[in-house]
Amino acid sequence: MAGDGSEQRALQYEQTLMYGRYTQELGEYAKEEAARLRESGQRRSLSERSRTLDLLEYEKGRCAKCRICTVRCQKFLISRVGEDWIFLILLGLLMALVSWVMDFCIAICLQAQKWMYGGLDSNVFLQYLAWVTYPVVLITFSAGFTQILAPQAVGSGIPEMKTILRGVVLKEYLTFKTFVAKVIGLTCALGSGMPLGKEGPFVHIASLCAALLSKFMSLFGGIYENESRNIEMLAAACAVGVGCCFAAPIGGVLFSIEVTSTFFAVRNYWRGFFAATFSAFIFRVLAVWNRDEETITALFKTSFRLDFPFDLQELPAFAVIGIASGFGGALFVYLNRLIVQFIRKQKAINRFLMKKRLLYPALVTLLVSTLTFPPGFGQFMAGKLTQKESLVTLLDNRTWAKQGIAEEFDYIGHSQAWKHPQVNVFITLVLFIVMKFWMSALATTIPVPCGAFMPVFVIGAAFGRLVGESMAAWFPDGIHTDGTIYPIVPGGYAVVGAAALSGAVTHTVSTAVIVFELTGQISHILPVMIAVILANAVAQSLQPSLYDSIIRIKKLPYLPELGWGHHEKYNIRVEDIMVRDVRYITLNCCYRDLHNVLLTGHLKTLALVESAESMILLGSIERAQLQSLLSQQLGRPRRLEYIRERSIAEKKRMSVVSNPVSEDSSQRVSQEVRFQISTEESTFSPVRAVPQKPLKPALKRTSMVERHTEIPASPNDNSGIALKNLFCASPDTEALEDDGDVEDDMTIREITEWEEMQLDEQVNFNNCKIDPAPFQLVERTSLHKTHTIFSLLGLDHAYVTSIGRLIGVVSLKELRKAIEGSVTVKGVKVRPPLASFRDSGTSSSENEATELHKLWDRHKSMSLPRERHPSESDEKSQ
Amino acid sequence: MAGDGSEQRALQYEQTLMYGRYTQELGEYAKEEAARLRESGQRRSLSERSRTLDLLEYEKGRCAKCRICTVRCQKFLISRVGEDWIFLILLGLLMALVSWVMDFCIAICLQAQKWMYGGLDSNVFLQYLAWVTYPVVLITFSAGFTQILAPQAVGSGIPEMKTILRGVVLKEYLTFKTFVAKVIGLTCALGSGMPLGKEGPFVHIASLCAALLSKFMSLFGGIYENESRNIEMLAAACAVGVGCCFAAPIGGVLFSIEVTSTFFAVRNYWRGFFAATFSAFIFRVLAVWNRDEETITALFKTSFRLDFPFDLQELPAFAVIGIASGFGGALFVYLNRLIVQFIRKQKAINRFLMKKRLLYPALVTLLVSTLTFPPGFGQFMAGKLTQKESLVTLLDNRTWAKQGIAEEFDYIGHSQAWKHPQVNVFITLVLFIVMKFWMSALATTIPVPCGAFMPVFVIGAAFGRLVGESMAAWFPDGIHTDGTIYPIVPGGYAVVGAAALSGAVTHTVSTAVIVFELTGQISHILPVMIAVILANAVAQSLQPSLYDSIIRIKKLPYLPELGWGHHEKYNIRVEDIMVRDVRYITLNCCYRDLHNVLLTGHLKTLALVESAESMILLGSIERAQLQSLLSQQLGRPRRLEYIRERSIAEKKRMSVVSNPVSEDSSQRVSQEVRFQISTEESTFSPVRAVPQKPLKPALKRTSMVERHTEIPASPNDNSGIALKNLFCASPDTEALEDDGDVEDDMTIREITEWEEMQLDEQVNFNNCKIDPAPFQLVERTSLHKTHTIFSLLGLDHAYVTSIGRLIGVVSLKELRKAIEGSVTVKGVKVRPPLASFRDSGTSSSENEATELHKLWDRHKSMSLPRERHPSESDEKSQ
Repeated sequence: MAGDGSEQRALQYEQTLMYGRYTQELGEYAKEEAARLRESGQRRSLSERSRTLDLLEYEKGRCAKCRICTVRCQKFLISRVGEDWIFLILLGLLMALVSWVMDFCIAICLQAQKWMYGGLDSNVFLQYLAWVTYPVVLITFSAGFTQILAPQAVGSGIPEMKTILRGVVLKEYLTFKTFVAKVIGLTCALGSGMPLGKEGPFVHIASLCAALLSKFMSLFGGIYENESRNIEMLAAACAVGVGCCFAAPIGGVLFSIEVTSTFFAVRNYWRGFFAATFSAFIFRVLAVWNRDEETITALFKTSFRLDFPFDLQELPAFAVIGIASGFGGALFVYLNRLIVQFIRKQKAINRFLMKKRLLYPALVTLLVSTLTFPPGFGQFMAGKLTQKESLVTLLDNRTWAKQGIAEEFDYIGHSQAWKHPQVNVFITLVLFIVMKFWMSALATTIPVPCGAFMPVFVIGAAFGRLVGESMAAWFPDGIHTDGTIYPIVPGGYAVVGAAALSGAVTHTVSTAVIVFELTGQISHILPVMIAVILANAVAQSLQPSLYDSIIRIKKLPYLPELGWGHHEKYNIRVEDIMVRDVRYITLNCCYRDLHNVLLTGHLKTLALVESAESMILLGSIERAQLQSLLSQQLGRPRRLEYIRERSIAEKKRMSVVSNPVSEDSSQRVSQEVRFQISTEESTFSPVRAVPQKPLKPALKRTSMVERHTEIPASPNDNSGIALKNLFCASPDTEALEDDGDVEDDMTIREITEWEEMQLDEQVNFNNCKIDPAPFQLVERTSLHKTHTIFSLLGLDHAYVTSIGRLIGVVSLKELRKAIEGSVTVKGVKVRPPLASFRDSGTSSSENEATELHKLWDRHKSMSLPRERHPSESDEKSQ
Repeated sequence: MAGDGSEQRALQYEQTLMYGRYTQELGEYAKEEAARLRESGQRRSLSERSRTLDLLEYEKGRCAKCRICTVRCQKFLISRVGEDWIFLILLGLLMALVSWVMDFCIAICLQAQKWMYGGLDSNVFLQYLAWVTYPVVLITFSAGFTQILAPQAVGSGIPEMKTILRGVVLKEYLTFKTFVAKVIGLTCALGSGMPLGKEGPFVHIASLCAALLSKFMSLFGGIYENESRNIEMLAAACAVGVGCCFAAPIGGVLFSIEVTSTFFAVRNYWRGFFAATFSAFIFRVLAVWNRDEETITALFKTSFRLDFPFDLQELPAFAVIGIASGFGGALFVYLNRLIVQFIRKQKAINRFLMKKRLLYPALVTLLVSTLTFPPGFGQFMAGKLTQKESLVTLLDNRTWAKQGIAEEFDYIGHSQAWKHPQVNVFITLVLFIVMKFWMSALATTIPVPCGAFMPVFVIGAAFGRLVGESMAAWFPDGIHTDGTIYPIVPGGYAVVGAAALSGAVTHTVSTAVIVFELTGQISHILPVMIAVILANAVAQSLQPSLYDSIIRIKKLPYLPELGWGHHEKYNIRVEDIMVRDVRYITLNCCYRDLHNVLLTGHLKTLALVESAESMILLGSIERAQLQSLLSQQLGRPRRLEYIRERSIAEKKRMSVVSNPVSEDSSQRVSQEVRFQISTEESTFSPVRAVPQKPLKPALKRTSMVERHTEIPASPNDNSGIALKNLFCASPDTEALEDDGDVEDDMTIREITEWEEMQLDEQVNFNNCKIDPAPFQLVERTSLHKTHTIFSLLGLDHAYVTSIGRLIGVVSLKELRKAIEGSVTVKGVKVRPPLASFRDSGTSSSENEATELHKLWDRHKSMSLPRERHPSESDEKSQ
């Protein structure tokens, strides 16, 4: 089965490439892709032939039946291996192991720091040096290692996963290198004790695992080369990432859905649950096996009382936590962005930092660890506790500040860190919150693999604790009025605060579920839900989520969400935002038109219409396809053929003997072309690949098609006579390697004349891959509906038609601008959606009202009588 | 603002209609719709005019500024009222009240039965009579009431909601009548004590509430007439339904997503959470307010130990529960369907039951209540407990069968019902499970509003309890090997069983979350998740979910899901399943072609192509539109005009004076037509509506357009000469009411001739509403992708094009058949997907292999080398 082997290798190769391209230069990418496809098509047809031969041989052989049976068994095994559940189990197992090993290493790292710090308690300076050097070294190593091996591993990875799941191909984001860099970099970063999180990177690591596992499984064949299946598996992997990080399968699935998807296919639901549950299960079983735990329990188990978890009258306090967390979350996102932008803008700083890439991480780590140094300022903010320890103490079910006097409380274990002889526990908490807040915002800008979820979670818990302790001090006997005394449980407030703040920063509701799973108690469900929803409401109206903020900073190609209750979106139509000046080519255009269109625009695809008069949309063609058409027409090989034919004709005129070869070959080509029209599958290669070999075996040159696709297309710096430089290889070098039977004896003038002649010929679209059903919208399709369709189908652009006639085009860019309320029509910036509402009394801004804006206003003012028609036509248009 | 008022009424009217049509006769529906739109368009243009007049008057007045301010305030209030969150809060509040009041009434009903039964303990016969009569009367009343008021209220309503959320309009499913019938019917049905559930109907009730509330809110204006917004609100309402039924907001949201959606828009997520949380909160606050509870807690609060919830070695037992529940769930669905089909098939029974509609409910109730009669057989199956009481006792955290001896256990409260002096508690449990199983399957077929979730949940809990008690008897000191004794908690097994069985029946994973919220404890998360996933895996491979089963029984228009791991779906292409014989009309066709097309087919929409040669798809036209075109062309009014013009021409010939009116009017019409082409919005009415009034005010007849749409179109029973009967009103009745200025003096022969002449004219599509961008697929689009697109966009059919040329059509029907593996091409039934795998060695079925089948096999056998091309082309095709 040699054919199979080479094919599998080809598939594997393809998958590496599939993920290994960045979309920014999609034009080039598409070109390479096309070339690769043609190549592999060739290879495939060869391997297919060899396979059929193999099979024939088998059947001739004596033990044919036996071998057929073997083939069948093999196929059966392959089909089993291809089953989703096996893949998901493997993924879950792998991720649980990774998560557990990483936790183990991090714990050892942190213990080593404590041990060093503890061992040097004789000398405070040495202690400080140990306390500070250790994280600086780890973080610097992490940053350097990541920088060298795979810079893509920096950051949380959730924004990138969000973009990838939307269907955009990001370069190098799912490779083995990135995996190694992310795992080792994350372990070091977390081992340093800095306020960094594990959860975001784990989503990325799980996706990497899934992509690599999928590649590995495709060695055994199966269905691993299906693109849509890969996306489904990546979505499941994101759930596994969160699930095995927190041992929270349900929360993991929901969080990953909220964070990465726009539209979620419910049929994938079970995949996420299955893999995440299995992963969380193995993760916790490993803990039991390692004797850390007696049985499977929650990661941060709490033991609040069950009979009376909270009083109804405490709900306002929970609501206050929610609203405050909303503001806090928005502030966190803003602060984080501000730091990044500040460092980017300050050119002096930036230049310096760019030179010494590791200086920034080292400086930030030095600052943070100096401030948390326990004998120093750290004593006022429980600096000696690790993130995990602080969270455990914050979720404690005892009250710290009974009667407002901290001394009376019996601090045991880690809780002692919160006690300070001179300072009240309230002040400690406030300092902890304030310091950790900016520290976390700063630390997450370090270029190491890190997330922000855990730090924010801890800050939220501390804030909740603060409110809870205040309540407990205020109402020492609880609020309940009927006889029984139910004291207030500040730990419950901490749970609420943690869920609310992390929900506000990530704009998710499922943090509520995560806290239930993390603490193993669901008794505070209503306070948590109320706080999370309020926090989301506040945060979403102030700032984008942390992940969206990073997407904007990194300028990743992503479509923003429609915000809460943006009703005016229902009233904007496609006709208001579409670009009316569409570049198109007609079915009967000549190569000159093609050339002009390619020179003037930079669109990835061009519309193909029947004729300029009818404007009936027939399909769309990729730019690379047109470039290849044009270069084929004007390329040197064709010119050489022309010269040869001319000389043959001349010879013919001189002798009576005619050459039958050329006629035969032309006949062959026309046959091929007809074949191509009837079956769409063979659009890629045959014309170029098959006839080449029998036709001119004497010509020792590489395939023309293969060569010209390797040349970067830069159509702007050329024009007029030097046209051939534009799309063909440099003629000088070509002339050297070309030792064919024909001599290129044309002068520049002759070449120009010939080219002019060629340009006037009509384009033959037969060799061209045409997308026959590009997505179409109607003028009156609402923005809301357009957004839905774009995000549902992962579109890049859509044509706007009116009864089959092409009248405009909408791309992601226009849509993004329309949603962000900054549509620029003719260079004038339109006011944001609510602006017209705010200053509707004054007429000061009249002069900057654009055509679109007027339209917008008209829609608004006439929304009552007109709204029905559009919804009607929208319904029908799809 | 009189104009506004009439408009709002019009909108309200529209919304009633929007939901009030059944899709089966979509042709008729579309006709009515079109007529209504035309009407309202007229009304609208009038009201718009009056409004502008009003505004002008205001501005003339002295206190113009003040009035403008008022208008603005009004607008502001309206825009606030239109905010989603106000709607959601109102919905949550309303549903919480409904749920609580209903629970209250049900509790009273059940207490009344108990009281009657308890009061008559002197005479067993009287006791039996009371025990049996009470539920029979209630159920019969419920069935009768529902039957009379709104038969749509029967059943759970989840299947219907699933269909509605997919975009299909179901007749009368969201009206006030249905609401009343459902609420009262459900209260009576549950008050009878039969094994029926509240949850399914509550989803329907919440959706009804949302639809009615939306209608009510539209009185205040706002954006309540947007179709896509209504769907979003209905999705949120489903979450509220489950949420306030179980006080389980998170589980409610997830369950409603799993049960009703195919693709879920994450941007709607918060809506569901917000409304469900608010609703659950109010629902529980009402309980506190009523002094039922001291504070907000879970509905079925458990108090299992937190420190050691279960041992790792108990996991196999949980897995066994999961797998057994999977089989049990599938059996339940099968049994339920079997009962329905049996009753339908037995014609004698069916005819008898149809006559006496209330007999079936009464008989079933009699049977069930007789068997549960406590002094009778009921003593062996805890018959005297209500559903709620049994669930509470089953989730009890004490062990019933300590050491296997039931007598030693101290039964208190309701738990006593499980104790029987002669019979072991195990036998009681087994009897309970077996009896309740078929009783529930039978009871849910009664035509009253009822669900199956709760009964199944209780049976699952009982099964879990049985396993738990067995385990406790087997390992009296627990399984844990290290020193400490942790006895087994059978209550935890009950929780696991309940989640697993209900998950298996409904094919959902979120029942796990629902049990956590119901019990208020999340400590058993891993066992529950494992059991639920196993149960789902087993049940999904055996039977459809209960809701899908009902959808199939009721033959609702719904697209089935792609099953687990159906890989061959990736290899079927649209070209394999599409209908190649598409009915189309050309742009330059004459009315005769139109007539022929309408006579021969029954499709709802027809494709419009440029010409029969080019076959370039321009759009699609609804059947009703074409019918109206045809009737307009052949209608009596046009004939009368023809007669009048003829007479005028004759007059003209006789006198010199010419009539300027007709010329003026024709000019007007042409202007209108031009206007129509330039703006799509006014496609509906103007041509027919506007010119009528100024043109012929003297004619005392109703609008021609309005009249002909009221006539049922039955194009089959007519042909040839009697053509006008087909699409126009009966000429006899019309002649009577028509007292115009022209006399219809044409003979039948003349009419026929005139009609023949008219039929040869070219169709003018200007007045016609054309959908300019019907959804298009390509031949090579995979079944998987097609399914995704159909369910994402809620399509009914899609055209298959090849470079703009129409080559086929795929409708839901073909897709459904292809997915269900029974594609019939040329009348031959193709084998199910796995058949070719099973009998690949034999050649017995060769003779029934169809063309499609061969294709299928080819796809399969060549899946390795060919799979890449298709996925590639799929990617590009969208």
